[in-house]
This record gives sequence, structure tokens and C-alpha cells, in this order.
Amino acid sequence: MKKISESAVRRLSLYLRLLQEADAAGAETISSGELADRGGTTSAQVRKDLSLFGSFGKRGLGYSVQELLERIRSILGLQREWRVALVGAGKLGSALFSYRDFEARGFDIRAVFDADPRKVGTQWGGLTIRADEEMVGTVRALEIDMAIVAVPADVAQHVVDRLVSAGVRGVLNFAPARLKVPAGVALKNVDVTLELEGLSFAVSSR
Amino acid sequence: MKKISESAVRRLSLYLRLLQEADAAGAETISSGELADRGGTTSAQVRKDLSLFGSFGKRGLGYSVQELLERIRSILGLQREWRVALVGAGKLGSALFSYRDFEARGFDIRAVFDADPRKVGTQWGGLTIRADEEMVGTVRALEIDMAIVAVPADVAQHVVDRLVSAGVRGVLNFAPARLKVPAGVALKNVDVTLELEGLSFAVSSR
Repeated sequence: MKKISESAVRRLSLYLRLLQEADAAGAETISSGELADRGGTTSAQVRKDLSLFGSFGKRGLGYSVQELLERIRSILGLQREWRVALVGAGKLGSALFSYRDFEARGFDIRAVFDADPRKVGTQWGGLTIRADEEMVGTVRALEIDMAIVAVPADVAQHVVDRLVSAGVRGVLNFAPARLKVPAGVALKNVDVTLELEGLSFAVSSR
Repeated sequence: MKKISESAVRRLSLYLRLLQEADAAGAETISSGELADRGGTTSAQVRKDLSLFGSFGKRGLGYSVQELLERIRSILGLQREWRVALVGAGKLGSALFSYRDFEARGFDIRAVFDADPRKVGTQWGGLTIRADEEMVGTVRALEIDMAIVAVPADVAQHVVDRLVSAGVRGVLNFAPARLKVPAGVALKNVDVTLELEGLSFAVSSR
């Protein structure tokens, strides 16, 4: 399989959402134009994106919703459930935890950790918040795959090091810190200041 | 000026952070290798990115920190302060508001709005939370440039329509909704599920 760019992976996620809506609405086929509109791109780019994974669709008939849905789910690794830990039960962690859309999409938060002894032991929607000291043992025992890290910047690397040592293979980091992970671990950063700077650029250059 | 990709803009933001650190540490020059390391890219890509904006640096001497810093700030539109409104004073809005890094980088939250009458009138760090009904008038009066939207998906488009009608030119949207803005307005979406799907892809394909 060819190397796939991060932006192509994002477009696949967007195509998937449209396919799920189309499937729920009972549609059997979908055009590259409809997928392009949702992915914020062109029909030619849609065809190019999908051709990376083999041939789909027939000229003039569009793509089979069901076939493409299953194929994209498989490409993105979404035919399984992912076991997720949330580290940081502050305001942001709480906002992320209450955002239930994850679970519907196969990301199941199985454990929540916090360093604050006043939070440890309290319940969040059926889960007991655990102390940071329990992190390595719990992540191993629950076979956690991925972690969402919503802790202050100055402790983020230490948290991630422990998660990685416990076997976590993917980290979604919200801390405004530049983290290092070993080559076998995937890291994504959500950086709000970076997004605002992107807006600043877009607004300034219009 | 050539069209600049979104990923190039993100790299400029990352270069800028390293330059600010280097400047604070008293460094006068910086190499493309150091910038590449921070931007998660190659020296060749750094030189290509910077060449988009004219020539910088001398072979063997690296780039002038001060000159490049000013130049990137100017390219990104960061030589000014941006007036920002936050819409949605829920958990996520609260987490974003308390994240003071924005302000240090020139994004000043001047107004907060919420639809919940129990929140309206309460104080957040010197700002009084205002009712949604005041949004259009206040955004106009305060000459707000950009808005951060942290409201439920089903009301997000209505909120954005009002912001745009009041003159907002950039929107950073956290609602899991597909929003439409007119051509002259910049829109960026932070979509946590999309990031998790990207991780799923990365972990699955290793």
C-alpha cells in the first residue's frame, strides 16, 4: 500500500460520515461529486484518494455505499472497538468525557486518571477516577490501546512515557507541549493556538 | 504570493515557536535542520517553505532569528492583536477560556456568550457572560474579528450565521457539525473524533 498523507486520511473520515448518513437514509450508491462536497475537495481528488485502495465504482453509476463504507472502515481500522484511557479529569477532560460521540464511533473510554487526590475515587458516568499511580497497571490490565491526554504541559511528557511503557500505541495530546514518543507509537496533537494562527493567516490573506 | 497549503501554514506556526524560544534564549541564528526538527519535516522542506516568501538565510550561516521571526509573524498576520469572542460557556468553553496561552499569542477573548440564563450575568475572569441575544450587537460594538464556537451541534450553524452577520471574519468551530460560511469568512474545525480516527489508521497500519 502506498504511503497515505494525513490530509487523505482526514478526507476518508469525512467520506465515511457522508456514507454513514447515506446508508442510514437508504441510499445504495453515491457519486464522487457528493463525496467531494463533503470532503471539501474535488471529484478528481476523491477518485484519486479511493484509487489508492483499489478500484471502486463504475463510471456513471457511482460507488456502492455499502461496499465503500466497509472498505473505508477497514482502511481506517474502525472495524473493531478501541479501548481508550483519558488522562486528566480537569475542565477539558470533563468536556471530552461528556462528548459521547466517540463511543458511537468505536472509541470506548475504559479508564480515567487524575493526579488530584480530591478527584480520585469520584465517579464519572460509571467509571471511578483513578490515581496517576495506578496508570501503568490499569492500562496493562485493561489492555488500553490509545490514550487521550488532557493534562498540564509540564507533566505531559511524563504521563505519555508511562502510557507508552504500559503498552499504549496511540496518543491524542491536548497539552500545549512538544512530546516525544517511540517510533512504534502514533501521536496526534490538538493545538488550539495553532488553529487560531491558521485562522489569523486565512483572515489576513483575504 | 503563491497559494500556501494548510500544512505549510501549520509548519510556519511551529517554526515560529522555535524561533521565539531561540530568541528568548539569545540565539542570533538558526539552521534549517533545527527548524525541520521542530516542524516535523526535512531541511529541504523548510527551505522550500521559506522560499515561498522570498529569500532568507545565507548558506552555512543559517537564518537570522530576529528577521525570520518578524517575517513569519507578518505572514501569519500576528503583528496585531485579534479580538475574539467565545460562544458557549459550557465545559469545553470553560476549558478553552482558562487556557491563557491564547492571549500571550495575540488572541484576546473580549466577550463570552451563552444561551443558558443561569450562566448569563456571571463573571469569568473579569468578563460578564452575555446572553446569545446580545451577540450581534456586542460583536459589532467590540469589533470582534474571530469567534471560537463551543456550542451543541444542533445550534452551531445558527450561531455562526449570526456571528458572520455581525462581521466576524474567522470561526474556530468545536461543534461536531458541518458548517457553512460565506466565501469571505475563514472556518476551521477541531474535530476530536476525526483525530481519533486518524490515530486508529496510524495504529492499524503499523
